[in-house]
Amino acid sequence: MTAIAILGAGYMGSAFAHVAAERGHDVRLWGTWLDDELVGPARRGEPHPRLRMRLDAHVRLFSSPELEVALRGAEAVVCGVNSDGVLPVLSRALPHLPASAPLLSLTKGFITDEAGRIERISRAVRALLRPAGKDRPYVAVGGPCKAMEVARRVSTSVVFASDAPDVAELCAGWLERETYTITRSDDLAGVETCSAFKNAYATASGLCDGLQLRGHPEMYNTKAMLFTQATVEIARMAVAMGGRRETAQGLAGVGDLHVTAAAGRNRAYGENVGRGGRPAEVAAEMARLGELTEGYPALKTGWELLLRLAAEGRLATGDFPLLDALHRVVYEDAEVGATLAGLRIRA
Amino acid sequence: MTAIAILGAGYMGSAFAHVAAERGHDVRLWGTWLDDELVGPARRGEPHPRLRMRLDAHVRLFSSPELEVALRGAEAVVCGVNSDGVLPVLSRALPHLPASAPLLSLTKGFITDEAGRIERISRAVRALLRPAGKDRPYVAVGGPCKAMEVARRVSTSVVFASDAPDVAELCAGWLERETYTITRSDDLAGVETCSAFKNAYATASGLCDGLQLRGHPEMYNTKAMLFTQATVEIARMAVAMGGRRETAQGLAGVGDLHVTAAAGRNRAYGENVGRGGRPAEVAAEMARLGELTEGYPALKTGWELLLRLAAEGRLATGDFPLLDALHRVVYEDAEVGATLAGLRIRA
Repeated sequence: MTAIAILGAGYMGSAFAHVAAERGHDVRLWGTWLDDELVGPARRGEPHPRLRMRLDAHVRLFSSPELEVALRGAEAVVCGVNSDGVLPVLSRALPHLPASAPLLSLTKGFITDEAGRIERISRAVRALLRPAGKDRPYVAVGGPCKAMEVARRVSTSVVFASDAPDVAELCAGWLERETYTITRSDDLAGVETCSAFKNAYATASGLCDGLQLRGHPEMYNTKAMLFTQATVEIARMAVAMGGRRETAQGLAGVGDLHVTAAAGRNRAYGENVGRGGRPAEVAAEMARLGELTEGYPALKTGWELLLRLAAEGRLATGDFPLLDALHRVVYEDAEVGATLAGLRIRA
Repeated sequence: MTAIAILGAGYMGSAFAHVAAERGHDVRLWGTWLDDELVGPARRGEPHPRLRMRLDAHVRLFSSPELEVALRGAEAVVCGVNSDGVLPVLSRALPHLPASAPLLSLTKGFITDEAGRIERISRAVRALLRPAGKDRPYVAVGGPCKAMEVARRVSTSVVFASDAPDVAELCAGWLERETYTITRSDDLAGVETCSAFKNAYATASGLCDGLQLRGHPEMYNTKAMLFTQATVEIARMAVAMGGRRETAQGLAGVGDLHVTAAAGRNRAYGENVGRGGRPAEVAAEMARLGELTEGYPALKTGWELLLRLAAEGRLATGDFPLLDALHRVVYEDAEVGATLAGLRIRA
């Protein structure tokens, strides 16, 4: 039995807590200051409001003020908040982080640091931990993993990536089970880059769905072309960020893009835009309804990162026609149908 | 204007004829002895019975006995029949094939020759043409390309692959247009292998859909894992067959698998099996209704090819757990849910 503290009681953190508890671990699920309405019901044994199911009875719940207790003696710390929450949550946890307990990150995205530089999450986290003498092995979890399905024991395969492969192996051993299998990888840069870009590219599939709802003929050919091009561009980006092409062609890239483009809020965001909604207004409206659409900011961040890498001579923007098209649709109100039809790809 | 003779007036041949005619070519669309009920209405200017739309008025239609006239003076010959029809149709066309006109193949699959050996279509075709002194440049068309959508000008990107790249370039020049863009490739072996395997692997997605219809929870994670593993296995097979990994990661592999797994008869076949139908009976019933399910025989052919390549030491069957699982479900009546849940992949 391993003591595992999970930070963030939303979809992913809670599903992960459930999985870990079913494996018999001492699981502490801590809700942030934004999670009070999730922790309360779960603590009373009621269904988790997001996952809509009861968590395993062995999950111990902690509310925001109880962070220190939740972390005490933890042998692994799991970060389950979204990319905006990573630095605020870890800053608060910093004094209480047990020495040497590895950090597993379920978070996908990039972090823009105080200097405005777009960074992989692991690098931003290390920049926080290291000066405090709290650096530790880091494992990024990638791959196609909807929380609702993981919690319901639907067969899921993920990737645990770390530059400390023995730690990835250790963590995988704690958590693997028949319905949650784990590929080990030493390509942290590749997995993080794929995970960060999939939300941006998943909007493409939704745009097609939206066009069809407006009366456009079925466009499976186009969706397949866009999917292929997305995987090609993600692979190029992974390599430019120091990762490997094969990582993008595996679960962390192709797999995660597939699940994101088929289901979820980023596809839905694209659909609403494809139907004719103004991109900024659709994002605002979905946010108002509590539906986080990471794809919208991810397109901006991804585009800015591309421009930076191009300026550094590490990439050519011309090799990213799909990211360009999606960015123009979402941030320059380019017409969806004409923009997709004008896309020229080679794959 | 180029004289283009298209053999086979089903979905793909007719859609291709429509596209070529819109580009202004002298298009002759010849229906095989099985296509009489398709050629008749189209010739009278009525909608094509399969495509459910009128073909471009410049498409000239020829019925089965008019093969010689259709081929006379053709500068390109397009094979648009299914893999079972390729050798019978080309055997009949053989005496009339204009010298040196390149052969474009829209056909996807493998051909089992008289000795029982599974061959890429181009090799089986050459074995027919060469002894007759009728060998010629060969171009295989791969990529995600539903005929209904091509005919309706839905944005589509395909691959023209040839070991005579200048001929692929020539043919692409004849046919490319804004909604039908063409990647050129010299990887004939890779494109043919990808095209032949996608029907087999597309059944996996349908199996998941069928399980859900039987009450299984949503399984987007599983579908994404299966899709990823399918692309990994197709890439391995492409390499073993003399092709390139990148081909499988482009439109011919990832792209064609995507469209086939999302829509079409092979997905539907998998769905019917996933719902609990006996695989052989589902295939027979769909055949009775005129719905060709290439995925069913493709799984048998693909498995036999794998066994041969393994016996030759060129591949290991253990690297193809998904093909193994699908083959067991479809040809050994293995239980769908348990078989998919027991799949162990690394990607």
